[in-house]
Amino acid sequence: MTPRAQDFSAWYNDVIMRAELADYSPVKGCMVIRPNGYAIWELMQRALDDMFKATGHRNAYFPLLIPQSFLAKEAEHVEGFAPEVAVVTHAGGKQLDEPLVIRPTSETIIYDSFAKWIHSYRDLPLLINQWCNIVRWEMRTRLFLRTTEFLWQEGHTAHADEADAEREVIRMLGVYRTFAEEWMAMPVLTGVKTHSEQFAGALRTYAIEGLMQDNKSLQAGTSHHLGQNFAKAFGVQYQTAAGGLEHVWSTSWGVSTRLIGGLIMTHGDDVGIICPPKLAPVQVIIVPIYRTDTEKAAVMEVCEKSVAALRAAGVRVEMDARDGVKPGAKYYEHEGHGVPLRLEVGPRDVGQGQVTAAKRTGGKMPLPLHGLVEEVGRLLGQIQRELFEAAKMRREQNSRRVKTREEFVEFMAGPGGFAYGGFCGDAAVEAEIKEQTKATIRVIPDGEFRSPETPATCVWTGRPAQYEAVWAKAY
Amino acid sequence: MTPRAQDFSAWYNDVIMRAELADYSPVKGCMVIRPNGYAIWELMQRALDDMFKATGHRNAYFPLLIPQSFLAKEAEHVEGFAPEVAVVTHAGGKQLDEPLVIRPTSETIIYDSFAKWIHSYRDLPLLINQWCNIVRWEMRTRLFLRTTEFLWQEGHTAHADEADAEREVIRMLGVYRTFAEEWMAMPVLTGVKTHSEQFAGALRTYAIEGLMQDNKSLQAGTSHHLGQNFAKAFGVQYQTAAGGLEHVWSTSWGVSTRLIGGLIMTHGDDVGIICPPKLAPVQVIIVPIYRTDTEKAAVMEVCEKSVAALRAAGVRVEMDARDGVKPGAKYYEHEGHGVPLRLEVGPRDVGQGQVTAAKRTGGKMPLPLHGLVEEVGRLLGQIQRELFEAAKMRREQNSRRVKTREEFVEFMAGPGGFAYGGFCGDAAVEAEIKEQTKATIRVIPDGEFRSPETPATCVWTGRPAQYEAVWAKAY
Repeated sequence: MTPRAQDFSAWYNDVIMRAELADYSPVKGCMVIRPNGYAIWELMQRALDDMFKATGHRNAYFPLLIPQSFLAKEAEHVEGFAPEVAVVTHAGGKQLDEPLVIRPTSETIIYDSFAKWIHSYRDLPLLINQWCNIVRWEMRTRLFLRTTEFLWQEGHTAHADEADAEREVIRMLGVYRTFAEEWMAMPVLTGVKTHSEQFAGALRTYAIEGLMQDNKSLQAGTSHHLGQNFAKAFGVQYQTAAGGLEHVWSTSWGVSTRLIGGLIMTHGDDVGIICPPKLAPVQVIIVPIYRTDTEKAAVMEVCEKSVAALRAAGVRVEMDARDGVKPGAKYYEHEGHGVPLRLEVGPRDVGQGQVTAAKRTGGKMPLPLHGLVEEVGRLLGQIQRELFEAAKMRREQNSRRVKTREEFVEFMAGPGGFAYGGFCGDAAVEAEIKEQTKATIRVIPDGEFRSPETPATCVWTGRPAQYEAVWAKAY
Repeated sequence: MTPRAQDFSAWYNDVIMRAELADYSPVKGCMVIRPNGYAIWELMQRALDDMFKATGHRNAYFPLLIPQSFLAKEAEHVEGFAPEVAVVTHAGGKQLDEPLVIRPTSETIIYDSFAKWIHSYRDLPLLINQWCNIVRWEMRTRLFLRTTEFLWQEGHTAHADEADAEREVIRMLGVYRTFAEEWMAMPVLTGVKTHSEQFAGALRTYAIEGLMQDNKSLQAGTSHHLGQNFAKAFGVQYQTAAGGLEHVWSTSWGVSTRLIGGLIMTHGDDVGIICPPKLAPVQVIIVPIYRTDTEKAAVMEVCEKSVAALRAAGVRVEMDARDGVKPGAKYYEHEGHGVPLRLEVGPRDVGQGQVTAAKRTGGKMPLPLHGLVEEVGRLLGQIQRELFEAAKMRREQNSRRVKTREEFVEFMAGPGGFAYGGFCGDAAVEAEIKEQTKATIRVIPDGEFRSPETPATCVWTGRPAQYEAVWAKAY
């Protein structure tokens, strides 16, 4: 495997191949998500779906194919997405009267339904989510991070007024942050995007941004306040309690299989991926070690009892009892697959009524068989916390408050990371910074992520700062 | 609502609209699956996915888009599917060098990966499943039953020899039957298809077939033995233990959102859908009934405690506490949505320490509050069994052993249903029967579904019968 320090991008691909998470496909820019990768996605889906339902959302499914004319109904939306759609021109052996585009996102086809379903204030809020595949014709693709087809969820909600829509946007941003931090162990900044980085058709876009180990930022989830833009384009109106007629206010929000890329680049090391226990398809791997048949009998009994006890407690545990593969080779394989905890069981362990635990994050220790389930649970919790704390410390070490253009340029040309600084708010200046340093404003940070004192001047122009911004190079 | 006896097809659409299961979409032949319908699909997915995993399968995801040339690699496959594919000719603003088809099924794109993943007998069997969307350009569409786009799962497995592949095909047919009967409460026949009805590219196709209330058969799931056809077309070979090189034997099997149509047409009545409790998004609806504030306080206390107790026991329960909607209107609404059990709670019930239960399948009874959770569980189990027994009795009443062409024609021209009879095995005769009566051979029935004695002569030609077949008109 290529070490991270040598070539981060090559390392990233090596990790994916070694863990068998995904594969290239014969269709340009598309990927095959292999069982090991899909198992992580299933755990992500389950956790997110539970949170969506707990916040009152229901799943539905809308068509993959969208009439080309629908995309054009919202001016900014079509400008943003038209260049990257895949177009179906023929079907059933005939040319279509109107071409259909494969959804690059589903606002337009969903608002067509919302216009039929929403009549009165009693129908609001309408809180819908969809799990589906999306196609955007990308030029440069990277497994999980940017692929022509990807899997995602897209929430779409309609509200009676602006304040209620804003509450929803912030609520779902919070759900994403909770998921990133508590499940993926990936600390994220939250905040609003500048106009140039927002969703095509949105009033405002909020995002969560994580700092990867190469000090580039990954936009890991977005939550958009769409205002009344789509409601007006598709005629989604409701009768108010007072009898008037109003357009709804709406939101959309999404995360995708890109999260798997974020998980890899947040926690992976030169041996491979490290799965946070909450999202590890296999949380514990048990490896029996023996030479003789007598040893085997004693060791296997302990292994099988341990598997049964852990599985009964809800731990995702497997035993690797393959003959003809040496323990060291098994360790190497499961480390590459990111299994957070390994239990080795040899004759000496059995004699002492224990197993030997090895954490994927480092450290070996004996665990008494008595109370094994509790100890394993404790260790998995510990690994989950260690991963988060290590990632957070790394982010803080690679975040810098910069005051001047020189400092800014030096930071971005050097190690890079999150640069906090004042910004004059001028879009032309934002573009100039991007051109000269490749850094973009990731977010205008939310309350708790703001510096104690808002900088007085713009890092680039020295003019009075409108607000504090966080820059980084980004995926 | 249109009664079933008047116009079954109109009734079917009315049921779907009343229960808000699905909606037409602006894209021809595509449907929107509304939250009430999608919730049933999610419960189906969860149950099936658990069974797939328990039988050793893992989920993966393969690209939506398939190079047109891939489809052509298996001769029968391309002949079967080429006429109904949707074709992407343009993407990213340019014409594509090779058109891409939207998957009508994924054998070809999956075997391309299998050829890369399978090297040795140690890699076999390879047991993969995929949950995804599919597009087939259909001329006549019906919500859930036949739509241009639908959701499904497709299992794809590779095996070292024919016998192991056959075991897999039969195992998954059994999983489908178990799901249909124990979850959907829909009795099904199982058996093999004749050549004219099998999957394009298969050696043999097995299916489960349910008899709907209009006496038409619904093919509800298929399990295909693909032989070495796709392995040869895509070069999927493995090294045997002895060191030779062999093509794998493979299978594929699938069920789709069509199952929701089957559920509706098996159990629905003139009031609407009836959800079998195991697949009911809401299993129990609690309706409080009161006139005064004093009554309300006492009634709501009982309702809330009942909701909490049932929910804690894992029952999917909701309370309909809307003001301004009369109890009768609530009953009507939840009956239309197919909720299997309603609990009414009025002041008299509270006084007597009970609630009044109303089964969607008919029958009202008091349930003491003491032991309510157990009684509700018992009633839900009873409703599940009643639905299955009623459907099975209906199927038996509409199955006929026919001996002569006259009997056959009269049966199919009359009430219709499953006609069991001898068949000479001649494909031309099969086609003639279809043309003259619209009935097709649904299956050559499996062991337990065969008549005690195989008929000696063909119902149509009087020639010696090769085997017993089951005919019906079909969806």
